Amino acid sequence: MTTRHGPRVLHLLRKHGPLTRGRLGALSGLSRTTLYDVVATLLDEGAVLASVPQAILRKRGRPAEVLALNPEAGHVLGIEFARDAVRVAAMDASHEIVGTAHEPHGVDVAWPVRVDLAWRLADALTGGTLRSDGVNGIGVGMAGPPERSSLLTVRHGGVAELVRERFGTRAPVDHAARLAALAETVWGAATGAQDVLYLRLSHDVGGGLVVAGRLHRGAHGTAGQFGHITVDADGAPCECGKTGCLETVASVGAVLNACRSVGGPAMDLPELEAALGSGDRTAHSVVARAGAQVGRVLADLCHAVGPDVIVVGGELVAACPAVMESIAHELASHAVRGPGPQPEVRSSGLGSFAAALGAVALHRQRTSPTSLRRLVEAGVVA
Amino acid sequence: MTTRHGPRVLHLLRKHGPLTRGRLGALSGLSRTTLYDVVATLLDEGAVLASVPQAILRKRGRPAEVLALNPEAGHVLGIEFARDAVRVAAMDASHEIVGTAHEPHGVDVAWPVRVDLAWRLADALTGGTLRSDGVNGIGVGMAGPPERSSLLTVRHGGVAELVRERFGTRAPVDHAARLAALAETVWGAATGAQDVLYLRLSHDVGGGLVVAGRLHRGAHGTAGQFGHITVDADGAPCECGKTGCLETVASVGAVLNACRSVGGPAMDLPELEAALGSGDRTAHSVVARAGAQVGRVLADLCHAVGPDVIVVGGELVAACPAVMESIAHELASHAVRGPGPQPEVRSSGLGSFAAALGAVALHRQRTSPTSLRRLVEAGVVA
Repeated sequence: MTTRHGPRVLHLLRKHGPLTRGRLGALSGLSRTTLYDVVATLLDEGAVLASVPQAILRKRGRPAEVLALNPEAGHVLGIEFARDAVRVAAMDASHEIVGTAHEPHGVDVAWPVRVDLAWRLADALTGGTLRSDGVNGIGVGMAGPPERSSLLTVRHGGVAELVRERFGTRAPVDHAARLAALAETVWGAATGAQDVLYLRLSHDVGGGLVVAGRLHRGAHGTAGQFGHITVDADGAPCECGKTGCLETVASVGAVLNACRSVGGPAMDLPELEAALGSGDRTAHSVVARAGAQVGRVLADLCHAVGPDVIVVGGELVAACPAVMESIAHELASHAVRGPGPQPEVRSSGLGSFAAALGAVALHRQRTSPTSLRRLVEAGVVA
Repeated sequence: MTTRHGPRVLHLLRKHGPLTRGRLGALSGLSRTTLYDVVATLLDEGAVLASVPQAILRKRGRPAEVLALNPEAGHVLGIEFARDAVRVAAMDASHEIVGTAHEPHGVDVAWPVRVDLAWRLADALTGGTLRSDGVNGIGVGMAGPPERSSLLTVRHGGVAELVRERFGTRAPVDHAARLAALAETVWGAATGAQDVLYLRLSHDVGGGLVVAGRLHRGAHGTAGQFGHITVDADGAPCECGKTGCLETVASVGAVLNACRSVGGPAMDLPELEAALGSGDRTAHSVVARAGAQVGRVLADLCHAVGPDVIVVGGELVAACPAVMESIAHELASHAVRGPGPQPEVRSSGLGSFAAALGAVALHRQRTSPTSLRRLVEAGVVA
C-alpha cells in the first residue's frame, strides 16, 4: 500500500509543508484506514515525523498531530560501477529522483579511486550534504559476467566493503543489467508491467527478469544471463568458456568484429553509428543480422517466461537504434500464436542511467532506515 | 502463515479430535499470536469450526472455546483431462490427499462423457459423499498446446462450464504441465524449493515455472511453453507452425519416429521401453540424442531463469528413465560455471498424477470456500 500511496503523501508534504492527518486525508483523497497505514509506514521508515505543536496543545480537546517530512532523512543513492565510468542517481526522502551524474574513467582505474569518484558525484548531487547527513541507503550495480565466480565474489565483496567504508553504510551489490531491469519496470519503458524481460546489449550481454513486479534473481543469483544462451553451438568461443553464446554475436565488440570480418574497416562504436547514419550497407546488414539473432533468442525466452513487455537497452541500442527493427521483426516471426497480444519490444526508457536508478529502486524494496524511535532518542522529534 | 501451519493444526484436530486453543497451542508449539492467525484463517475457510460446549458454559469464568474439524467441509478435487485418460486426486478438509484414481479412454471420447467419468471417479474417491456434500473446490488441468488460441479458449471455456454443471461449483482451468510443476513443488521431487523448472516430455512437450514458490503463468498465461523453443531452425515442422521446436525432437511421437527413421521397426512406447530394457543400441542412441537436446535447452533456460531444481517428467521419462542421464550430462557440460551449486535435475516424484495433484494445489492457493458466517446461517455451528 505504501509503495503506491507513500510517494503521494510525501509529495503533498513537500508541496504544502506540515499538515494534520485530516488535511492530508482531504488533499490525498485516501480513506482514513489507508492513510493511517501509509503514515504508520512512513513514520516507521523515518521519512515523516509526527509532532504536536505547542499552540495546539494549549487548546482544549484532543490535540491534532501534525505530520512533516523528516528533513534529516537522507538520500538514497544508486551507484553503477561500469567498465569505464561511474554513474550515480540520488532519490530524496520524498521518493523523488533528485538527479543523476556520471564520470568516465579508464578501464584500469583502481577500485578505491572509483568509489571515491562515486562519493564526490553523490556529494555534488545531494548539495554537499553527504558529509553531514550521511545517506539513508545505497545500492550498487556492477558490470561483469556473473559466471566468473571466484573473481566476482571477491570483487563484489571487496567493492561492497570499500563502499561501506567510504559512505558509512552497507550497500547491497547486484548485477548492473539486472538492476536496469528493475529500474525500467519502476520508472522506465516497462512502467506498470508485471512481467518484464530486460536485455542489455553492451560490452557484454546480460539482463534481468521482473516476475510479478519483483526482481527475480533465481537460485544463487544466476537468473538473467541471457548473454550465455547458445545461438550457434559451432560459433565463436565466448569468454565464459562455451562457444556460440548470444554475447559472441550481439555484444558491442562482436558487432564491431563482424563489421571488420565482412571487409569493413576497423571501427569503434561512434564510427559504427556514423556509418549507419550515412547509410553504409555493410554496417546495416551486420547490425540487422545481430538483431535477428537477438530476436530469435527473445522468441524462445517468451515461450519460456511469457513477459508482458521486453525492454532492450545498452550501448549497442543507443548507437544503433535500427537494431530494434530486426529484433522486433524476428521476434514476431518466431512467436507462437497465442491468446492475447504478443509481447511488446521497447527500447530502454532510462538510457545509460538505468542501472544506477535500479540500484536506488533496489533500496526501495529493502527499506531499513532510521526508525522513529531512533529519531526520538536523538532528540530530532519533540 | 496458514500455508505453513494450517495443515499442522488440521492434522492435530484430526488426530486428537476437538481441542481448546490452549491445548492446541501446547500440542502444536505455535505461539498464541501465530495460532490465533492460523485458526482465524481456518475458521474463515470453513475447514474448522469453533463452539462452546454446554458443559463448559455452565461453569463460571470465561468459557473455553473448542475447535474441531468441520466434518461438512467437502473435499478439494483435482482433475486432469489428458489425451486418453481422466485422472482425479482428492484432498480432504485437513489438507491430506485421500487418494487418486484414473480411467483410460479413447482419444475421441466426447467431453461430457469425460466429465461424467471424472465425477464417478471423484465420487468413489470421496466415499460416495459427492452427491450429498458437494465439493469445497475443484481445479482442472487440460492437455494440449496453449498456442492453439481460439481452439483452446473455446475448449477450456466449454470444459469449465461442463465441470461447473456436473459438480455444482466453478473450476479454474490451467495447463496440465503447469499444474504438474506446482504439484512437484508442493509434494513431489522439488518439495521445499523456491524456484523450480518442470519439463514434461509426453505426447507434447510442455512445462511450468515456479518462481519464489508460486506458479508463474506469464502474460496471457504463455509461460512454460518449453516445447516450442527452437532447437534446430532447419528441423522438422511442428504442430505450432514453426520448425525444429523441442517438441519435434523430444516428444514421445518424435522419439518413436526417430527410432524408425534410423532403420528400427515401428514401435509404440511399451515396445521402446522393452527395447531399451533388452539393451537395443539403436533405441539407446535415439533416446540419448533426444536427451542431449533437452539438456541443451535446459542449460539455456538455467541461464535465463536460474532454477534451484529442474524436474523432468512425462510418459517418455517413465518409459525411458535412461533419458535422464543424457539430460543431466548435457546440462552439466553446457552450464556456465557460477557461484553456488549447479541446478539439480530430478525425475518427477509424482508420476502420472502430478497434474491432477497440481489441480488440487491450485485450489490451495485460491481458497474461497464456505465461510464461518455461512455455516452459522446454515445452523451447522451452534
